[in-house]
Amino acid sequence: MSELEEYRRQIDGIDTELAALFCRRMELVEKIALCKRKAGLPTFDPAREESMKKRLCASFERADLLPYYREFLTTLLSLSKDYQKEPEGKA
Amino acid sequence: MSELEEYRRQIDGIDTELAALFCRRMELVEKIALCKRKAGLPTFDPAREESMKKRLCASFERADLLPYYREFLTTLLSLSKDYQKEPEGKA
Repeated sequence: MSELEEYRRQIDGIDTELAALFCRRMELVEKIALCKRKAGLPTFDPAREESMKKRLCASFERADLLPYYREFLTTLLSLSKDYQKEPEGKA
Repeated sequence: MSELEEYRRQIDGIDTELAALFCRRMELVEKIALCKRKAGLPTFDPAREESMKKRLCASFERADLLPYYREFLTTLLSLSKDYQKEPEGKA
């Protein structure tokens, strides 16, 4: 296998893991939204989001990749918020 | 620990895993870009991107979450392309 093929094989493995983690994360987001609705709490918690971002960015391994990671994280959190806004039946 | 706290703890664990996978993926993207430049190949390969998307979306576990996953994947691939475009020093 060429070097390029080997790297692509590794990327494919990572992408499969990312898809499974994304799915599990959205299922948890759904459960959290349900919990909050039952408790009459707002689904979006800006303080929690801010502290998550800070923790994740502070421990991110490569400073030069941080701008890319920030965008990745922003998309992830934005998709979670969109999903939490879906009407009943979902969360 | 309340149900909500337990779900949040699980999300935090997933987010830590996602950050590590994102970092490893970008490192591979960098290596692939270097390989291709050495071989005089273009860094972006639309056919490979299309087949990756098809494979990942076809095997995605929850059909109702697929529109969210598509957006997540689009961002991931777009960030990878942006990184591959960086001048030497990077890839």
